Amino acid sequence: MSHAESNEALAERGDPAGAPGRPVTISYIAETAGVSIPTVSKVINGRSGVASETRARVEALINRFGYRRPSSSTRSNLVELVFDQLEHMWGVEVIRGVEQAARDNRVGVVLTEFGPERSAVRYWIDDTLARRPDCVISVAQLTGEQRDQLRARGIPFVVFDPTGELPDGVPFVGATNWAGGRSATRHLIQLGHRRIAMIAGRDRILCCRARLDGYRSAMEAAELPVGADLVERADLTAEGGRAAAVRLLGRTDRPTAIFASNDLQAVGVYHAARELGLRIPAELSVVGFDDLPIAALVDPPLTTVHQPLAQMAVAATELALALGRGDRTPNTGIELATTLTLRRSTAAPVTAPSATGDAPPR
Amino acid sequence: MSHAESNEALAERGDPAGAPGRPVTISYIAETAGVSIPTVSKVINGRSGVASETRARVEALINRFGYRRPSSSTRSNLVELVFDQLEHMWGVEVIRGVEQAARDNRVGVVLTEFGPERSAVRYWIDDTLARRPDCVISVAQLTGEQRDQLRARGIPFVVFDPTGELPDGVPFVGATNWAGGRSATRHLIQLGHRRIAMIAGRDRILCCRARLDGYRSAMEAAELPVGADLVERADLTAEGGRAAAVRLLGRTDRPTAIFASNDLQAVGVYHAARELGLRIPAELSVVGFDDLPIAALVDPPLTTVHQPLAQMAVAATELALALGRGDRTPNTGIELATTLTLRRSTAAPVTAPSATGDAPPR
Repeated sequence: MSHAESNEALAERGDPAGAPGRPVTISYIAETAGVSIPTVSKVINGRSGVASETRARVEALINRFGYRRPSSSTRSNLVELVFDQLEHMWGVEVIRGVEQAARDNRVGVVLTEFGPERSAVRYWIDDTLARRPDCVISVAQLTGEQRDQLRARGIPFVVFDPTGELPDGVPFVGATNWAGGRSATRHLIQLGHRRIAMIAGRDRILCCRARLDGYRSAMEAAELPVGADLVERADLTAEGGRAAAVRLLGRTDRPTAIFASNDLQAVGVYHAARELGLRIPAELSVVGFDDLPIAALVDPPLTTVHQPLAQMAVAATELALALGRGDRTPNTGIELATTLTLRRSTAAPVTAPSATGDAPPR
Repeated sequence: MSHAESNEALAERGDPAGAPGRPVTISYIAETAGVSIPTVSKVINGRSGVASETRARVEALINRFGYRRPSSSTRSNLVELVFDQLEHMWGVEVIRGVEQAARDNRVGVVLTEFGPERSAVRYWIDDTLARRPDCVISVAQLTGEQRDQLRARGIPFVVFDPTGELPDGVPFVGATNWAGGRSATRHLIQLGHRRIAMIAGRDRILCCRARLDGYRSAMEAAELPVGADLVERADLTAEGGRAAAVRLLGRTDRPTAIFASNDLQAVGVYHAARELGLRIPAELSVVGFDDLPIAALVDPPLTTVHQPLAQMAVAATELALALGRGDRTPNTGIELATTLTLRRSTAAPVTAPSATGDAPPR
């Protein structure tokens, strides 16, 4: 790790800033905070009966000094897995990967969905601390405060496929979204397409930005201009994809290929093409992202960027368990490679260009 | 309950056959079994150090006398949810329902997938007993022995959508599969179809048999013959549905409508229709079963029998938690009603019948 002064680094080294070489014990933290040992113990174990100000002061010291509770005596053999909202298809892939790693390690998986009203957010951290899991895998957006509370109790966590920027040193597992976007676009360029549009997701979602930048990078490398009329923003849903495709395909100089930010958007492009009487792939090539089961079931089967969700979930679980055991891990941030799955939704563009005056493909 | 002498009934009444009126205690069981109290305690808490013969004898007595451990002191606020294999789409619906009920009751959900190699089967019961959950929801096939082990520890369980016959008195939550099959078929009959085929699942799967019998019942009520050439058996997959549809549609007197046992089979029928150049619904009507998200995404959107999976999962969780609290529940077996979701894959058959010589629809 290059960010040696982060809390995580301290936690790993067990090397408090205030007392080099001395192991960080509960009594040392109690002494420094000017409170009793039972009070520190209460904070660590998430019990009540501590004034919130005192709790905050103790937590701050715990995080600063990187206290880790002795791990062997307190292993619960439980992994906490938390989602904001379980999405169809995508969610099952992640759960299956976590379950596979849990079987290999014989640990139980406690699954929490914050839910549409986020009603579990209120109590999740309290209940999690009470269950004393070995580690947490978060497919949800944890707040900085929640992360601090986990750190203060020595419960390591791994962020799965982060949707936002993370502070340096927060362990995560993701996919090579930028490279995936680049390879999808390059595939279309190699088929001879020149006017390639992209349906981008929302900029606040990190993986969407990476996919868009990958598209731009491939277009630039091929010296193809990316005008504002070639990029539409939409939600990651079939309806979002449909509406964006209708806009793109309604323009006079319409694109011959569309790269969608996920498979559901791509299914929406299919719907738009049907409405407009465009055949896929003869008159319009389509590429998706994710390679969910639906990609193989639609007609024609969808060419898409395969995101190894189950493998990512296995990796996240193994990493979290390793951190829970106190293992030294070579790296705490991992991106697994995407691959392009070729099916039947892409083809060379029709040689006689439409009314656009485009040059024929090289 | 009509089966008053079953173990469940005894457990509920707390009224041992051997000692009417006397509460069943650990010491009573120890005395009757001729073993020490710690031995009985070890069996109840799933600890080792008891000879397997002794263990079996104590378990038999516990089940016969219906011992329940005092529930208030031992609540773990955990629900165990166990799957054979997590299936795409179907699995997420179930998990979401369980999570919703878990939020309402503020309990944690421990999720286990036995997995493709069923590697978690070996240890699941031991780990579950060690976690002492309040109750178990089983989407997996539990063996009679596993059910006995749970009963012996006073851990109630509910079977979700049973795939096989259950002994009387085993709590379950399912859907009205027979009525759903009947209503799908009646819809096609009312549109004017006469030759309606069904792609049935495997007979060993209980819900598949019920759907098939519902189809037969509706055909019989309309005095429409169900020849052997109208029913094909297939796996509950898109490929299974495709292959069965190719066989059905290849016959000289081909059906004008197909009712598939689930949505994935129905997607396979779409593929077969495309291969054979048949337009849906103009030349072939299709009805599925389940109403998974994919049903709304395919083209044309699929008319299908809606199975309220999330509601069923909520009901199963609430029932299991109630049993865990020792509540008297009015009924321990529930089927929730299916409803027909009309989309655009069904229409009246073409009025001029094909080469079959069928009478036009009444």
